[in-house]
Amino acid sequence: MADYQAPVREMLFAIRDLAGLDRITRLPGYGEATAETAEAILEQAAELAEGVLSPTNAIGDRKGTRVENGGVVVPEEFKAVYREFKAGGWSGVTAPEEFGGQGLPFLFGVAIEEMWCSANLAWSLCPLLSEGAARAIEAHGSPELRKAYLPKMTAGEWTGTMNLTEPQAGTDLAALRTQAVPEGDHYRISGQKIYITWGDHDMTENVVHLVLARLPDAPPGVRGISLFLAPKFLLKADGTPGERNRLRPLSVEHKLGIHGSPTCVMSFDGAVGYLVGELNNGLAAMFTMMNHARLGVGLEGVAVSERSYQSARAYAKDRVQGRVAGETGRTAIIGHADVRRMLLTMKAYIEAMRGITYVTVADLDLGRRHPDEATRAHHQARVDLMTPVVKGWSTEMGQVLASLGLQVHGGMGYVEETGVAQYLRDARITTIYEGTTGIQANDLVSRKILRDGGASLRSLVLELRSFEAELATVADLEVLTRGLREGREAIEAAGAWLQANHARHPAAPGAASYHVLMLLGTVTGGWQLARGALIAHARLAAGATGPDRDFFKAKVVTARFYAEQFLPLATAHLRALQAGPDTLLALPDDQF
Amino acid sequence: MADYQAPVREMLFAIRDLAGLDRITRLPGYGEATAETAEAILEQAAELAEGVLSPTNAIGDRKGTRVENGGVVVPEEFKAVYREFKAGGWSGVTAPEEFGGQGLPFLFGVAIEEMWCSANLAWSLCPLLSEGAARAIEAHGSPELRKAYLPKMTAGEWTGTMNLTEPQAGTDLAALRTQAVPEGDHYRISGQKIYITWGDHDMTENVVHLVLARLPDAPPGVRGISLFLAPKFLLKADGTPGERNRLRPLSVEHKLGIHGSPTCVMSFDGAVGYLVGELNNGLAAMFTMMNHARLGVGLEGVAVSERSYQSARAYAKDRVQGRVAGETGRTAIIGHADVRRMLLTMKAYIEAMRGITYVTVADLDLGRRHPDEATRAHHQARVDLMTPVVKGWSTEMGQVLASLGLQVHGGMGYVEETGVAQYLRDARITTIYEGTTGIQANDLVSRKILRDGGASLRSLVLELRSFEAELATVADLEVLTRGLREGREAIEAAGAWLQANHARHPAAPGAASYHVLMLLGTVTGGWQLARGALIAHARLAAGATGPDRDFFKAKVVTARFYAEQFLPLATAHLRALQAGPDTLLALPDDQF
Repeated sequence: MADYQAPVREMLFAIRDLAGLDRITRLPGYGEATAETAEAILEQAAELAEGVLSPTNAIGDRKGTRVENGGVVVPEEFKAVYREFKAGGWSGVTAPEEFGGQGLPFLFGVAIEEMWCSANLAWSLCPLLSEGAARAIEAHGSPELRKAYLPKMTAGEWTGTMNLTEPQAGTDLAALRTQAVPEGDHYRISGQKIYITWGDHDMTENVVHLVLARLPDAPPGVRGISLFLAPKFLLKADGTPGERNRLRPLSVEHKLGIHGSPTCVMSFDGAVGYLVGELNNGLAAMFTMMNHARLGVGLEGVAVSERSYQSARAYAKDRVQGRVAGETGRTAIIGHADVRRMLLTMKAYIEAMRGITYVTVADLDLGRRHPDEATRAHHQARVDLMTPVVKGWSTEMGQVLASLGLQVHGGMGYVEETGVAQYLRDARITTIYEGTTGIQANDLVSRKILRDGGASLRSLVLELRSFEAELATVADLEVLTRGLREGREAIEAAGAWLQANHARHPAAPGAASYHVLMLLGTVTGGWQLARGALIAHARLAAGATGPDRDFFKAKVVTARFYAEQFLPLATAHLRALQAGPDTLLALPDDQF
Repeated sequence: MADYQAPVREMLFAIRDLAGLDRITRLPGYGEATAETAEAILEQAAELAEGVLSPTNAIGDRKGTRVENGGVVVPEEFKAVYREFKAGGWSGVTAPEEFGGQGLPFLFGVAIEEMWCSANLAWSLCPLLSEGAARAIEAHGSPELRKAYLPKMTAGEWTGTMNLTEPQAGTDLAALRTQAVPEGDHYRISGQKIYITWGDHDMTENVVHLVLARLPDAPPGVRGISLFLAPKFLLKADGTPGERNRLRPLSVEHKLGIHGSPTCVMSFDGAVGYLVGELNNGLAAMFTMMNHARLGVGLEGVAVSERSYQSARAYAKDRVQGRVAGETGRTAIIGHADVRRMLLTMKAYIEAMRGITYVTVADLDLGRRHPDEATRAHHQARVDLMTPVVKGWSTEMGQVLASLGLQVHGGMGYVEETGVAQYLRDARITTIYEGTTGIQANDLVSRKILRDGGASLRSLVLELRSFEAELATVADLEVLTRGLREGREAIEAAGAWLQANHARHPAAPGAASYHVLMLLGTVTGGWQLARGALIAHARLAAGATGPDRDFFKAKVVTARFYAEQFLPLATAHLRALQAGPDTLLALPDDQF
């Protein structure tokens, strides 16, 4: 059974102390979002996660979903979860009040969503995708579309999907073929889409599809793609679902994990669709969803790791086996140094990943709501830079951690009934969907570092330097200062290498990109831990007592462990990328 | 479909050039094992793997096994595979001729077994376990037991198992409770064993169990454990199976992977058992099986990675998606730098892992058969040192590689029908069974490095130094020389750190052990690649042409890639271990 009391404390630390809740609550429009609101809503979310979502996680994994009579059938237990979720008003936490939402900051939303994903990843993909679809309609849809669809989606009465991928067009959206033919005030959409998460289900009375397609006379490539809204049921004059639209799920995939989440092959056979945004500019609208979704998937990496860690920690404290060197009697395995190493590795990385995710989400709030335009631009640029890092690094590490959590269980971990294997299977999708790690790495290097001549990266480096100077004033934390300095220098060297080499060889950015991503994740994760340790150090110096004292001491120890064990990887990544693309390209295809 | 033509070439290179087949064929008793024999038998094994074992791999995964009427039922297809395997005489390749085997070197056996494991890991565990059981009977059984059981096991008519684990006694065998009560010329065994691989099945007419148990008056702990042989069916006077013994499988586990391999809970209810070896000395006999099995599991890491690599390579050459920077037209994804990086990472690690595994197996042959006692001892000491490295590092990396293989497939990789997800699920057990990575690391540091005062490690370091000097004479390979020197220096520093710190704090070896293991794997793997590159360089200089030339050029490129990308990890592991156990121990249990 999942437990979110301890994580809520960690989340509140990340929200208040790392992400700076004060900055966010002062923003126009977030007036009611105080620290007390955050605490109260997180407690309620923890109850939902523990009491409602978590108990159905293994059930969804076992039962899966199926297509029957032209629709997807999900486990009955999932429908019950959805009813409670909707009744609690959870579908509109960060949605605008205009459409019936609570209008809370994304920084609250991220913590709430972490708990959903951790408690039941497969199920939580449904509200997460809906939220992304609603946001795209809000940003790009006509007033009529917004009025007709957003209140229902905000209330959780209908859910939303993103229909992008086609068999020949995965990463390469330029290749997509689905057609939209104009007909009066709407279009007729025809084509097949694959990998559509929650593409259909029987939890709500309508499903709102956002579909990428091209007009018959559209230009080739990504400049000819438009976005359409196609509901499962067309709306009657009174706004309620009426006639069935000509679209349906053909099948659901049999996947390694997230069995409770129907991954659909969708067929559009002249379905009625409404244009969202401008013609041939669908990619821009789609990226509104996508960038938000990428941060969300990074968060899934944190969430599944947390769940796996909870399981491993409980097992390690309970399982008695062997003796500890230097002690008498048999011991719980948490006492064995190598088991303890695995657990502390999980704890440290989870806090680092949570740190960069929450801080980036705070930048998202600041980029959206700050009254000063230059400040908004600064924070948005940081969001742009960090989104591929949060997505790529947190999901890559999420798999390592989910696997470590299984390892702590020994043979029991390999038995499905234990439950921890599911977390590994579920986590395995996160480095793939919403753009593989390779795509994140390419986005980071090409669009976020090289395109602006390294300006965003330099801004990050400056902030790291400034923090190092602050950290260096505390002698007790010297190992953190040293580790972070080495990491920051590696980032600077990587940036310089990219600037110097990208023109020399077109393959240089691509060959380096994975290491640049992992380097940035490793160092910015360590940065957030060090920031936490510095805050904790100050609180301890100010006389924190009781559980607070233990919590802050743990923050210092955890940051130190990360600096000692994982910051040395920064240099290893730097050296690997500095080797350049020549060796990689020297092997001909036929020698693979 | 699996392909073993390319791997056979790699295996022959590892056997002849890295492991030094000439040294092995000259050993007494291996007279008929020539390079030509190796080639011929590997070609035959490849046919069996491709044509017979591989086609049933996904079937076994899908169908699994079940207990029915007191026995395990396996898929019909597995029975057919077993019949062909037995008819081909494969069960006795390395078994002594005295019992009907072919008496070939282990160095041949390792390549053959790599193909079995790669083609169908779940199925191949049956003959692998049998071989281990037969070897223990050969080494420790009475002449009567050997005569009664070994010819049948060698012929594949009966299979064998290892019954070690009990619910309260996994890693910690001292805690085991299964009892053996003397009765005439035999014992009555009672107790429950778990995680018994191929503990029962319907492919042969008998199953020979080796069971750890203790006599009622045995001393506590591991010094009171004895080994017994308990057949499923007791033998009649004519040596054929007769009455059913009082033991049976209660259930099979529902596991993450290796579904085709029945993992049994076994119940012994006064089963007749015969003592193997001396009373209260069962652990020694058990380690005969265990050490061989550990090398075998390391080999599984190589084998599953190879299978995943084959799948990823085929997909990457076939799947057209996107464009390559600097080129025109859409391209197969192998042309994208990051996909190519993943594939070359797989190829380089697989060759490194295969290198250390085969070389260690050659040391096993030399340790067993070399006429000179000191030489035998030298090679056996190397086997002892390298066994936990081969087991731990090759399986840890095997999981990373199986996951990379899935990643190359993108969304397709997550769909079970693609097949590559099975390799990841199957590979996940390899860091757990036959001793977890933590146990291997502990064995390496405590028994193999500290116990002999670092003598075995120094002998390895000397050999590395001597090779470095040779490598340094070739300017073209300078990047290898540098990388290897840095790695060797890290090993020396790690050894010195262990010697200096193990007495200072009892937790120091345990906290360092994982990093020591990964460090040794990383560097010795790079060493074998560099040895291969040096050989290839000489062949190229001597005028190799055609496919040989391409093969040798690829060897140099692959070794260079490994040196550039992965040898920098040696220093990262060294720095992590040098941080010592203090931070790890500073976090109290309640702060996890």
